[in-house]
Order: sequence, then structure tokens, then C-alpha cells
Amino acid sequence: MPQTLTEKILTRASGRPISPGDIVEVNVDLAAFHDLTGYHVIEVMEKMGKVRIWDLDKFVLAFDHLAPPPTERAAEIQVGLRKLAKSLNVKYFHDVGDGILHQLLLEKYALPGQVVMAADSHTTTAGAVGAFAQGLGASDIAAIVITGKTWLMIPEPFKIRLMGRLNPGVYGKDVALHILREFKAEGLSGKSVEFYVDDPSAFPMDYRATVSNMGTEMGADAAMFIPDQETINYIRNTRNLDVKPVTPDLGAKYMDEYDIELSRLEPLVAAPHSVDNVKSISEVEGLDVDYVFIGSCTNGRLSDIEAAAKILKRGKAKARCIAIPASRDVFERALELGYIDILVKAGCVVTYGTCGPCIGGHFGLVGPGEVAVSTSNRNFIGRMGSKEGKVYLANAAVAAATALEGKLADPRKYPS
Amino acid sequence: MPQTLTEKILTRASGRPISPGDIVEVNVDLAAFHDLTGYHVIEVMEKMGKVRIWDLDKFVLAFDHLAPPPTERAAEIQVGLRKLAKSLNVKYFHDVGDGILHQLLLEKYALPGQVVMAADSHTTTAGAVGAFAQGLGASDIAAIVITGKTWLMIPEPFKIRLMGRLNPGVYGKDVALHILREFKAEGLSGKSVEFYVDDPSAFPMDYRATVSNMGTEMGADAAMFIPDQETINYIRNTRNLDVKPVTPDLGAKYMDEYDIELSRLEPLVAAPHSVDNVKSISEVEGLDVDYVFIGSCTNGRLSDIEAAAKILKRGKAKARCIAIPASRDVFERALELGYIDILVKAGCVVTYGTCGPCIGGHFGLVGPGEVAVSTSNRNFIGRMGSKEGKVYLANAAVAAATALEGKLADPRKYPS
Repeated sequence: MPQTLTEKILTRASGRPISPGDIVEVNVDLAAFHDLTGYHVIEVMEKMGKVRIWDLDKFVLAFDHLAPPPTERAAEIQVGLRKLAKSLNVKYFHDVGDGILHQLLLEKYALPGQVVMAADSHTTTAGAVGAFAQGLGASDIAAIVITGKTWLMIPEPFKIRLMGRLNPGVYGKDVALHILREFKAEGLSGKSVEFYVDDPSAFPMDYRATVSNMGTEMGADAAMFIPDQETINYIRNTRNLDVKPVTPDLGAKYMDEYDIELSRLEPLVAAPHSVDNVKSISEVEGLDVDYVFIGSCTNGRLSDIEAAAKILKRGKAKARCIAIPASRDVFERALELGYIDILVKAGCVVTYGTCGPCIGGHFGLVGPGEVAVSTSNRNFIGRMGSKEGKVYLANAAVAAATALEGKLADPRKYPS
Repeated sequence: MPQTLTEKILTRASGRPISPGDIVEVNVDLAAFHDLTGYHVIEVMEKMGKVRIWDLDKFVLAFDHLAPPPTERAAEIQVGLRKLAKSLNVKYFHDVGDGILHQLLLEKYALPGQVVMAADSHTTTAGAVGAFAQGLGASDIAAIVITGKTWLMIPEPFKIRLMGRLNPGVYGKDVALHILREFKAEGLSGKSVEFYVDDPSAFPMDYRATVSNMGTEMGADAAMFIPDQETINYIRNTRNLDVKPVTPDLGAKYMDEYDIELSRLEPLVAAPHSVDNVKSISEVEGLDVDYVFIGSCTNGRLSDIEAAAKILKRGKAKARCIAIPASRDVFERALELGYIDILVKAGCVVTYGTCGPCIGGHFGLVGPGEVAVSTSNRNFIGRMGSKEGKVYLANAAVAAATALEGKLADPRKYPS
């Protein structure tokens, strides 16, 4: 029978025929945790009396959530994990500054067709390269890191087709927000979403990563882009590696399909306090904004920094602005291209490779009564700081135009 | 009678003849506070029922200690101060990212001959341009900001003469540490130190700022460099302003004088846990180091970033390294000159304009059991994070060489 991408990956990983709803054990191809969840994972492993890693070639540890550490406790946790990484001979250990875990998985590790499991909800990001990628809790990840296996319920495959081309000012983020508007938060629970892109070059990897990242907000078990020429190119460019992508069979059956005509989308925002409280930019334009954050595993990639720089080159930001490229590689590239220079001259504070304010962790929390525009993935009450703050989620161009004006702004006013 | 610089400034500021030990009221030329002390200053002003600023041309507010805010409380305090600055029409308000207060006073505000009072102990930094600059507590600064006046006991003038020229690898920091070794911490209490530089070009403003900054560690009431051609050039270059410096009269009497032959100095470090536990680099060379911090109001200036970059261009740092230029201006200049690029490629995490780890505030605290080398000004137990950490204070070249080797290293091994 023709198989979807989900079925193909999970058949291989479980070594048996599968159907949606089945509970199966699968071999994991890549597992990971970060400083914040790592602490809990190790705690579970210690309780089990098995502090070990089943396969050093398949495990990644990155410090990103509280990096560099803003508290003594965070510093202490990192000291502990660093020692452990050394004693276990962890091969792929990324200390403070290398990058946000999800960005590193994308740049350096995840491959099409893999099962990727990490102790962070936004692990779905690796779906951008066509991996079945899922975030799990500390106990599940502890079991995976010890045994290399986990169990899961086979999700229902759901196909979303992206047709045509985005207009200027519209990005991957708007596709994610559009889906959240249509299906609501958690609306795709129990589903493995497979995105098929009609014209691979029209929807580059950075945009895919944003959509896969917010698959978690949709409730999806996984949010994968069916590998295509863009996937091949991306992995060749970042890793000098040629991959032969796994793809769904012709005639594979999905529980449902949904089409998006990209050219019909406009810049969107998720208004407080829910990711699915989605409005078009015209509905909120002109609202006073105190603070803009450009970064995170959702939108801290080169195309985001580029989009922001192309707008902020016009002058000084009127709202406070913090810009954090998601990894050292992104920062270095943005430096070379002059984008960091533009952002700094516009008044943005920059650093790189940390989650920072996205999780209300450090480096720019939202204060009481403040209105923020953020390129990150969640705007729940208190997520980015004060419970009396308000956060609008948007793409990096909306964020940059907003910083420039000090008001929620439509980036289409600033064609490049 | 011929007057010292101290006497000249305080005679003018008090409007009466003065002698050491006198308690006089002086007019303040420049007052300032930052986010952390600002909160307390305002609290005092509120209790006095007088929330006002005596002269908007003479007051500076800068957010630097917890900037960008790493906690909800810090964000809340900044929201409050920002509103207040707006309601009081504060003219010189520097939000998150502009720079560390002391660096901003140096770059933009302080002038030779002024009385500068700010709510932070390292206000002595402004002595680099020949201002009588002192850090005071929140209540004193509140009174100054309301009335423009304060009282002080006239300190004893003490002269330190800097002769000759520093050898490569030796910087202003080593002069400060040398003085601390000779006179011990607090050894210059009750004194106003006046530095006379034989050859002004041999000891540039950045170096002076480091020495004046650590005047506080020496216990000095003020630590001023007698204005000279270097002062005139610096103010012309940074502010396009020609100043006519106030200088001591010929034959002015000092309670004591002390000479330093610059060419005899070598790179020094202050070992844990005291600023005057000073050792030559050769005594500590080779000690394993986990973490290096380059920045702060002590050593976050362009010459520091330059010294670090010239060493770190040789390869990847083996110790974790965080580099924080002290202001946006310094960062921009370091960007233009390619230094930021070098630091990032070497593996340093960069941002700018925040005190960060120097005060154990955020962005890279020292963890338990860790050994750190820091270009900042204090290495007391727990100052930069864990009470079980150890901090060695050093110049930026020592710090960079140490980062490169992962061991305390002599920068003279890496001539530029």
C-alpha cells in the first residue's frame, strides 16, 4: 500500500507494519536536551541508576535556555551538565553561545526520514528537513537516551499543500499563524502534518523551520516538510552532505488535506494572549508598542535578520529592540552581510544563540503594562515576563517595521 | 597659595577657601544614577515628597546594571524609571543598550574641573577626564538631584606620577593593580589622587579610565588625571568640543607623591578573593581557567576590545568567553574595525552596554568550582556569581590570552 512520509518513517523506525492509533516502539535516530530540561533528564537517569548515553553519535546537548547563565542556579546547572558531558564523552556538546538547540539540530544534525526526539516542545522544528521530530518530557527523553527507543501512538497523517508564492512582507510565520487561525491552537492534535510545497524554491528552509516550529502550537505530533530540492540544497550547503530524501509514495492516503494559496496571505499577528488570536496587520496597525524582540527558534534565522535589517536600515528604532540570531553561524553570516551593523546602528541590542526573552528567561523581559511584538512562538500571559504585559507574535519584518515606528506597522510600507 | 587640582575644583564648587578636612557644601556639575540605584534614589525622593530634578542639563539616567532586564522585577523597575524620566522631561536618558553609565559619562558628559556625583561606587571613572568624581549612596544622590548641592569633607591631595611608557602586554589595568599592591585596598582612603602623566600620549584615555575606575578599590575619594593634551584630544574627538582644562598651579602642595615608572610594570592579576591580592602573571601562569569575561566599566573600551581581538585572532578560545563592550559607540567602532568578527569567530559570546556578569547580575555568572578571569574591578567572594567560584582580575590582553589557552596566560607570548 502506498505510504505517507509519516508511515514510511515510522514503519522503518518500528520495524513493523503500522496504522494510525497503533502504539509502537520505535528506534530513535537523534535525541537531545538543553540546559533547562537537561537537569531534569539527568535527575530521572540518576533515579534509574543509569546515567549513560546509548549512542554518542545520536545525541546532542546544547545550552540555550539560560545561556549565558543569568543566575547562580543556572550557572550551577551548567557546571554540572558540562562535567557530565565530559565524563560521558558527549560528542556533540554545544556550550553557551553555539546556538539554540533547535537551530543547531537543523544546521548540523537532523536529516530527512529520521526520528528526532528532544526534551523541548519545539523539537518539531526539525520537521523542516523532513524528520519526524517531537518534543517529549524529561522522563521519556531519559529513557530514550539510555535505550535509544521510545513508544508512540501512530498519528494520523494530514497533508497541507503550499501553492504559489508569498508576496513581499509575508513570511513563513504568516503561514503558521494562518494555520493557527484556521485550525486553532491544538487543532491538529494527534496528527502528523506533512507539508507539500508546490514550488520548493518558493518556500525556503528558514520559512519551513518557522512553520514546523509552530506545529507544536497547532498541537501536531510532528510537522514535516516533505523533502524536496530545497531540502537537498540546504543540507548540502550547511553540511556539505548529499542526502537522498525519503518521500511519500504516489497515492498515499491522508486523513485530510488542506491547501494554502501563499499569494493570498498577508502579514498576520497573534494578539494577546493566545497563539490563535490571529488578526491581519491592518486590524492592529498603529497600536503603540514599547518593545520588540527579534529572535528565538521560531524566527532567529538569517532570513529573519535580513528582513529586519532591510527595514531598520531606514533609521533609528522608536521602540526598544532586542535582536538575537539563533546561532553563532547565523550571527557570523549576518555580521558578514552587514545586517548586525544595521541593527546596532538602528539601536537594537544584539547577542546570539540564546532563547533569552522568548521564555521570560533573561535578556529583555516584558515589563508590567508593556506592549511587545515578538517573533517567537508563544504569547501566553506571563510567558515573556510580567503577567501584566501583552505580547503580539509576528514575522521579523512586522517586528522591524514596528520597532522603526514604535507602533505596530505593516512591513509592506517599506519595500526593499 | 598655589592649588592642587582638587583644591581648585572644590574651591570653585564651594565658593570659599578650603583646606583638607573641612566640611563644605559644593555645587554639583553633573549627577547621575542607573537602573539599580535609581530605584532607591526615587524611593528616597518620594519619601521626601520631592520627586524633581534641579537642572535637566546636569542629570543623566542610564540603564546598565540589569539591562536588558533578566527578571520581572528588573523589567518593572525599568518601566517605572522610564515613565518617571518621561514625566520629568529627563534630557539625558539612556535606555537599555546605550551603555554603562560610567562609560557614557566619559564619552558624552563629564568635563575637566567638574564635580560629578553618581549613585554608583565606580563614578570615580570620570576622573579620567579630570573631574572630581565620586560615588554616593541613594540618599545623598536624591538630595543632589533635588537641590544640586551636597556636602563633603575635603580630601587630602595625593599625587601619583606616571613616567615613561608601558611595555607591550601591559595596560592601564596593571597600573591600577600595581597601586593596589603597593597601597592595598582602601589604602588611599580620604585622599584625592591626582595622576600626572609625563608623556600624555603614552597613557591614553582608555587606560586612564581603568585607573580612575579602580580608584574606588584604592579607597580614594576621587582619582583624577590632571587634564593634558590627551584630555583635550579625547573630548574633541568624542564630542567635537574644545575644552580649556583646569590644572594644578605650579608648586601646589600634595600630602605625598608617588612615582611609577611605567616601563617597569608587567602584566598583573588580582588573585581571589581580594583586589589587592596582586601577583605577577608569571606567578599564576598555567592555572586552568573555565571562563573569561572581557568588559565592564573597568575594561570594556575600544582599546580593551582591540587588545583582546589581536590575541583571539589566532584561534578558537579554549575557555568560555564573554565580551561586552561598555557602550553602543564602542561596539559600533569595534564592529567597523573587525574586532567583533574576530571575537565571535574565536567563540566569544558578545553583546554590549551592560554590566552583565561583573556584578553577578546576569549574562554569564561564575558557577561553583569555576575559575574565572575577568577584566572587571572586583573579585570578592560571590561578586560574579557562586560563592564557590574564584575570580582573577586582569587586563584584556591577559584575559584574551587566557581564553585562547584555557589557562592563565601571559599576553606577551602573542605580540601583535
